[in-house]
Amino acid sequence: MFKKVCIIGCGLIGSSIARAIKKNNLASKVVSSNRSNITNNKVIKLNIVDEAGADTKKIVKQSDLVIIASPLSSYNDIILKIKKSLKSGSILTDVGSVKKKAISTIEKHIPKNVSWISSHPIAGTEESGPESGFSELFKNKWCILTPSKKAKDQDIKLLKTFWKKIGSKVDIMNAEQHDYVLSITSHIPHLIAYNIVNTTLKIKKKKDTDIVKYSAGGLRDFTRIAASNPIMWRDIFIQNRKNTSKMIDEFVDNLHDLKKAIKAKDGKKLEKVFTKTKKIRKEIIKAGQDISKPDFGRK
Amino acid sequence: MFKKVCIIGCGLIGSSIARAIKKNNLASKVVSSNRSNITNNKVIKLNIVDEAGADTKKIVKQSDLVIIASPLSSYNDIILKIKKSLKSGSILTDVGSVKKKAISTIEKHIPKNVSWISSHPIAGTEESGPESGFSELFKNKWCILTPSKKAKDQDIKLLKTFWKKIGSKVDIMNAEQHDYVLSITSHIPHLIAYNIVNTTLKIKKKKDTDIVKYSAGGLRDFTRIAASNPIMWRDIFIQNRKNTSKMIDEFVDNLHDLKKAIKAKDGKKLEKVFTKTKKIRKEIIKAGQDISKPDFGRK
Repeated sequence: MFKKVCIIGCGLIGSSIARAIKKNNLASKVVSSNRSNITNNKVIKLNIVDEAGADTKKIVKQSDLVIIASPLSSYNDIILKIKKSLKSGSILTDVGSVKKKAISTIEKHIPKNVSWISSHPIAGTEESGPESGFSELFKNKWCILTPSKKAKDQDIKLLKTFWKKIGSKVDIMNAEQHDYVLSITSHIPHLIAYNIVNTTLKIKKKKDTDIVKYSAGGLRDFTRIAASNPIMWRDIFIQNRKNTSKMIDEFVDNLHDLKKAIKAKDGKKLEKVFTKTKKIRKEIIKAGQDISKPDFGRK
Repeated sequence: MFKKVCIIGCGLIGSSIARAIKKNNLASKVVSSNRSNITNNKVIKLNIVDEAGADTKKIVKQSDLVIIASPLSSYNDIILKIKKSLKSGSILTDVGSVKKKAISTIEKHIPKNVSWISSHPIAGTEESGPESGFSELFKNKWCILTPSKKAKDQDIKLLKTFWKKIGSKVDIMNAEQHDYVLSITSHIPHLIAYNIVNTTLKIKKKKDTDIVKYSAGGLRDFTRIAASNPIMWRDIFIQNRKNTSKMIDEFVDNLHDLKKAIKAKDGKKLEKVFTKTKKIRKEIIKAGQDISKPDFGRK
């Protein structure tokens, strides 16, 4: 499909893409650039890519597809570094979770003859680093494409095919719509998980309560999401701060409504809300976005 | 261990206890009382218990151990119904998630010669009903005992052994301590999950956003907990409303702090919080309270 693919940032997502490319024979050569040479050595040793090095400018050269898979706050530095090395007629994409800021950052510097098409594979685990990636990560997951204005139609089509070949289902969305929808389905859930675990840790510190021991009552589920990559999520919240802030307000308003019902012993109201929320789980399972086994199949 | 055990309410927890008793040969006879005869017929047909019927007063007779496994709001009716049928020298327990109110409700009516020892097995799934139970549900999970003042020591010891035999680890706690700790590790996580899913559904209704499709970004995890039994959780929040309300306030205060940091683009603060929350996951896994596989081992 491609002669050379370059992945900038070979963490959980980047290394999973590299593995999927190799598994499905989608490129003759996969290379990677990482700031740390420990990582560069690791991805070579683990046979995840064919070549790796810290000199991004050099490594990127002659690539038909370049994928930025590093934190959102690194995009500006990266595009400044690589813009002159990008091959004419190639595609530049990323895997970031916020689109509006990222797209304009890259658009400012992208050469005319390169198609900049932002991607967001909605997939991941709570782990980080190249060791944690696997080729099946994108299977049955959605990947949202947000092409920049000047991206060529044939390149959008090609990138779409690429994601499909590694298992994804593909949707096209504009940046505003993407950042709004994802703030609901991903950013706020992560912030809430971080916040509940943070609140719990503060209480534990104050009162020496044994929360680890009794975490199977519900808390443990949130600790999985709250173990996600801190740098990645720091950048997501800051870059999507408008939607996130608005959503926090809606969340808190609704929480106060529930608190009011609890204090007033309004069982009818509580039952109504909890019955409504029960239904969506079945829809998610039906849509293939979670497994049907109870308790996520944990044993 | 016992001649006859009676389980009042054979749902997920009740039927799992019945299955575990049979599997481990802990009683010669296991009976159950359910308000609905559909359930009574089902638990007989599924061979979960030896006898079942709607006449609780009658079914309870001659039991050495009676386990209330129905919603907290039913306790008053149940103790009024069964108090004259309780066998002298027997043990009465429950599996409820809030202790203070439940203990006093039963204490008012319990005959002198019956040991009332409240239990709380910290185990469950998002499913409900007798079909969803299984004998291994309590394995490696904590069960907290809160004996009433007049419970005999030998009976506390016996009940402790019972829970251990079906796989639990047992702790003793007073009601205040229990209701406080569980509000942190279980009740607030459930309320937050219900609230985030409820907030999402409200937005979906207003703006027709496709949240099911992109739920793998984090939301899907919360929908599991928000699919828990509405009646059971309605009762828990109302009976533990003081702790729950206080904890909501702490949660909201901390969320406002995060919102402030996001709006101020205070990356250092966010990174610090998210790095702290990452650590607790490892402790939970080390304590055997969750599995170590990423993404709960979902495939």
